[in-house]
Amino acid sequence: MSAIPEDLKRRTAELNEEAVRPFPNSRKVYVTGRREDIRVPMRAIAQSPTAALFGEEDNPDIHIYDTSGPYTDPDAEVDLLSGLAPLREQWIEERGDTEWLDGPTSEYGRERERDPAIAGIRFDRSRAPRRAKPGANVSQMHYARRGIVTPEMEFIAIRENMKRAELAENALASQHPGESFGAAIPKEITPEFVRDEVARGRAIIPANINHPEAEPMIIGRNFLVKINANMGNSAVTSSIAEEVEKMVWATRWGGDTIMDLSTGKHIHETREWIIRNSPVPVGTVPIYQALEKVNGEAEALTWEIFRDTLIEQAEQGVDYFTIHAGVRLPYVPMTAKRRTGIVSRGGSIMAKWCLAHHRESFLYEHFEDICEIMKAYDVSFSLGDGLRPGSIEDANDEAQFAELETLGELSEIAWKHDCQVMVEGPGHVPMQLIKENMDKQLEACGEAPFYTLGPLTTDIAPGYDHITSGIGAAMIGWYGTAMLCYVTPKEHLGLPNRDDVREGIITYRIAAHATDLAKGHPGAQVRDNALSKARFEFRWEDQFNLGLDPERAREFHDETLPKDSAKVAHFCSMCGPKFCSMRISQEVREYAAERGLDETDAVDKGLQEKAAEFRQKGSDLYLRK
Amino acid sequence: MSAIPEDLKRRTAELNEEAVRPFPNSRKVYVTGRREDIRVPMRAIAQSPTAALFGEEDNPDIHIYDTSGPYTDPDAEVDLLSGLAPLREQWIEERGDTEWLDGPTSEYGRERERDPAIAGIRFDRSRAPRRAKPGANVSQMHYARRGIVTPEMEFIAIRENMKRAELAENALASQHPGESFGAAIPKEITPEFVRDEVARGRAIIPANINHPEAEPMIIGRNFLVKINANMGNSAVTSSIAEEVEKMVWATRWGGDTIMDLSTGKHIHETREWIIRNSPVPVGTVPIYQALEKVNGEAEALTWEIFRDTLIEQAEQGVDYFTIHAGVRLPYVPMTAKRRTGIVSRGGSIMAKWCLAHHRESFLYEHFEDICEIMKAYDVSFSLGDGLRPGSIEDANDEAQFAELETLGELSEIAWKHDCQVMVEGPGHVPMQLIKENMDKQLEACGEAPFYTLGPLTTDIAPGYDHITSGIGAAMIGWYGTAMLCYVTPKEHLGLPNRDDVREGIITYRIAAHATDLAKGHPGAQVRDNALSKARFEFRWEDQFNLGLDPERAREFHDETLPKDSAKVAHFCSMCGPKFCSMRISQEVREYAAERGLDETDAVDKGLQEKAAEFRQKGSDLYLRK
Repeated sequence: MSAIPEDLKRRTAELNEEAVRPFPNSRKVYVTGRREDIRVPMRAIAQSPTAALFGEEDNPDIHIYDTSGPYTDPDAEVDLLSGLAPLREQWIEERGDTEWLDGPTSEYGRERERDPAIAGIRFDRSRAPRRAKPGANVSQMHYARRGIVTPEMEFIAIRENMKRAELAENALASQHPGESFGAAIPKEITPEFVRDEVARGRAIIPANINHPEAEPMIIGRNFLVKINANMGNSAVTSSIAEEVEKMVWATRWGGDTIMDLSTGKHIHETREWIIRNSPVPVGTVPIYQALEKVNGEAEALTWEIFRDTLIEQAEQGVDYFTIHAGVRLPYVPMTAKRRTGIVSRGGSIMAKWCLAHHRESFLYEHFEDICEIMKAYDVSFSLGDGLRPGSIEDANDEAQFAELETLGELSEIAWKHDCQVMVEGPGHVPMQLIKENMDKQLEACGEAPFYTLGPLTTDIAPGYDHITSGIGAAMIGWYGTAMLCYVTPKEHLGLPNRDDVREGIITYRIAAHATDLAKGHPGAQVRDNALSKARFEFRWEDQFNLGLDPERAREFHDETLPKDSAKVAHFCSMCGPKFCSMRISQEVREYAAERGLDETDAVDKGLQEKAAEFRQKGSDLYLRK
Repeated sequence: MSAIPEDLKRRTAELNEEAVRPFPNSRKVYVTGRREDIRVPMRAIAQSPTAALFGEEDNPDIHIYDTSGPYTDPDAEVDLLSGLAPLREQWIEERGDTEWLDGPTSEYGRERERDPAIAGIRFDRSRAPRRAKPGANVSQMHYARRGIVTPEMEFIAIRENMKRAELAENALASQHPGESFGAAIPKEITPEFVRDEVARGRAIIPANINHPEAEPMIIGRNFLVKINANMGNSAVTSSIAEEVEKMVWATRWGGDTIMDLSTGKHIHETREWIIRNSPVPVGTVPIYQALEKVNGEAEALTWEIFRDTLIEQAEQGVDYFTIHAGVRLPYVPMTAKRRTGIVSRGGSIMAKWCLAHHRESFLYEHFEDICEIMKAYDVSFSLGDGLRPGSIEDANDEAQFAELETLGELSEIAWKHDCQVMVEGPGHVPMQLIKENMDKQLEACGEAPFYTLGPLTTDIAPGYDHITSGIGAAMIGWYGTAMLCYVTPKEHLGLPNRDDVREGIITYRIAAHATDLAKGHPGAQVRDNALSKARFEFRWEDQFNLGLDPERAREFHDETLPKDSAKVAHFCSMCGPKFCSMRISQEVREYAAERGLDETDAVDKGLQEKAAEFRQKGSDLYLRK
């Protein structure tokens, strides 16, 4: 017996103390849909009332989109060894278009089931995999195109609205108009809107029938911008238990999906542990594992090995596959003169294969065969950008855009099969070239959701690439990217630890939210307004709690003013009591109120007239002093 | 005797070990101008040669704009108790338009000189202040407008070019075209171009004749984007020695100017220590100190007290003053209904004064009197945005833009006096409203340099406002802002410590550099290209050293692969040796080279033709597989 289950037991216990602790002053609430078993989780942040000084009033709960799953629900039992409850099982079952399998149908999957050597690290799973009945297509797109609103779609509609309608009458609802660059976000998301966007291919619901534990979510530019967190061990470092823990940690801080990019030993088993415990969709890059199977010799890869890997992973429940089918033979020489060649692992593997055999990529040639697998489990495509630029100099070059055209061609083919598709994007791109990426992608790929890594807006800051890329991510999100793949401070330097995951996720939650604000996503500004109101009214605890990272905010405040009394003080350490502008501003307000300046339009108007007069006389008045 | 000098002695010693340590593989070089005493400092980063595997070659030194002053020069003697050498003294003297004063002419300055109680903390200064001779105007703008190229201007021209011309023939010089939004950056910066931009009011050289220790620099949108770092103690915390140390630390990491925002005890003395030791221009907000002088009672402020404060600080050597003369009486009621009122300290002080007296701001009314002081010392205006928005909701509102119009009016008046002016900007602004700020400022303020705080693109991330604002800073910099005022992770929560200063500065160096790239500043991409080349060739040490924070990059790399041998390994911890895409990419290149794919256009062309054929046949070819 290996120590993995022991390690996970220990970590489960620890989770209960840290990663599972509910956020301060927050509680998990569930909004029920048309059927009882549609229970959409949200985090409600309670606020304290406004003090008399600022005009006594109660402040409403603020509802937050919650990616953390049952882990932050004190009523849910968490046990990493058992996995999460399969909340979608019944919905899948009811559709009647799937069948249980006796066990894995992939060769490799069967082999791993039998191998006694890994018994100690295997997830003790009772569920067999499901697959579409022969001839059936179980993709959410397929249902959508037949006009069906699935429970998943209804779940998503409720989730995206975040009970914001309740605040519509509230002062917190005021919001700037957005600039949408062609996105069309409705004031209220309906299940039918979700369906139509999925049918149109403009959004995807990554929801493998073998990952019923995941809470449905959607990726599309007419919805809230999502973020992905990468994790995974490598040959060099980290363990299964660590990766599972990172997944829980990542969803706690706001990862909408995670990708398991493991390349080390026990890829299959690591993935199983992650999926069974993940409340969010899980993506992978199957070629990594296929390469492991041929001992790292790219030339030795075959369609058969890759195909078996797809089935193996689809039956485990991977929700989307990155497939680098756009790296075609004729594009490879375009990269030879680049500053940084091919920086995508999957891309370089395929490039090597193409050159070694001097033939077209088997991924490209077998693309329709891949579609057949995808629709049997509802795995979404994430068409990989194997030729993305790895440096500012290589941005927007011939190789990159040639591949993008091919990804558009492949999207069309996938849609022909009612397969769900998103398209991956760069990479390293200076600010002035970012919009071109988005515009070209929308055009070439028929508005399939764009899923970008950053982009990094400069190469000169190793150790801070969450920031170089956070800038680019916010911009490309605004222009229309549907999901942002996070970058941690360790990018280019090492594997992210827990702290790096948190830093990367918060950075990308900032980028995603800045994007939602800029696009004018209805209700996006409610949280900003609530936090700013709390700040202005010196409700310190509320200010912390409404933020993306309450713990850090409190920690920073404590560093300068540790006393509890400072949490109710009407000033802070930046200026001290005498110089506090917020305080003086309150005095201005009171002063104005006393004299009726604030209350009566008349006086206000009087002053405005005076202002107009001042402006008219301009510097003449000034010169007279 | 207070403990301050002892503390500073200790800190000087520590500086020699940490803040003064040259950056790894870097050396200080000086480029001499037309006269011997124009010695422009730069940091030359040496690189190791490219290994045979990647095509053996030497890699050139990369020259970096260096803000750290003599502190990183091992040949310079550093002693915080003595201050820096006055490198501009001779230039000022030669102009013959200034006179030495016997001592401070401000009442307060004289009082502090005499006060025996503060003898122990006073900087032991032998220099008396200078002032323009009666009727003279000693501003760099005044010289520029008379066609004079000052040594300061020549210094700046050399500094901005950063020896990049030397790399023009090198492969590292390739660069994407920028998108300039109307900025016009010449391929080479000449002293005459510097002069013309200053004469036009489109750039300023903050260079008080009483701060001859500072190395000349320029702020304007046709130059490299600059960043400012705020520091300063408050009534609540921190000491003189800490502030001086933070200043050294801030310039080490790349602060182009610093602002001393102290509001605690000993403002005058703290400032003196900072200025005498600062190699970069120092800005202040004089109203803070004026308010201290009237015990924090805004109503008690008078023009006379403010005037005396301006003279006091001008004679100490402050290079630019933030003056909130745009907060006019009629604008104050416009803020009463805001989400967060007035968040600028200076702005709220003036608003309170205006309301209390129900009269126009004395700063506005005495603006020409202020100009008279500014031009006698060459203090630049930084016209404060006292009504900037403190929350997303308040962005771009009536109050903010009314004030901006007034700042434009005041810029015109300052220019009439040949006074140098920049204009401060917000604040909290969602992405879609950022450009309007820049466009309005350019129009309203006749292209005076814009100097913005952030802007923060969302309110929901206390503890991460360096990032929420770094996004906005990069964008507004691209649109035309000349200097970005940094925000640290402690913003809204506490006073920044040394680590926060470093984090804030690196974040803003990233934003500024991303901006320089986006605008197409000539040679800006050289550093990116060099770092990416090092990365591709697995020259780990060079990759660290070329980055903004070599120490952190190395630290992060060490965390996963601590061994020294890993620093020369042709892989890293992210993927391990087998999966390394850079390595595979090299193999692709070699493979291609072996078969002449990389070398001969013929084969390349052959493949291209094949590609064209593939594309033409499109999915038909595909369907045939």
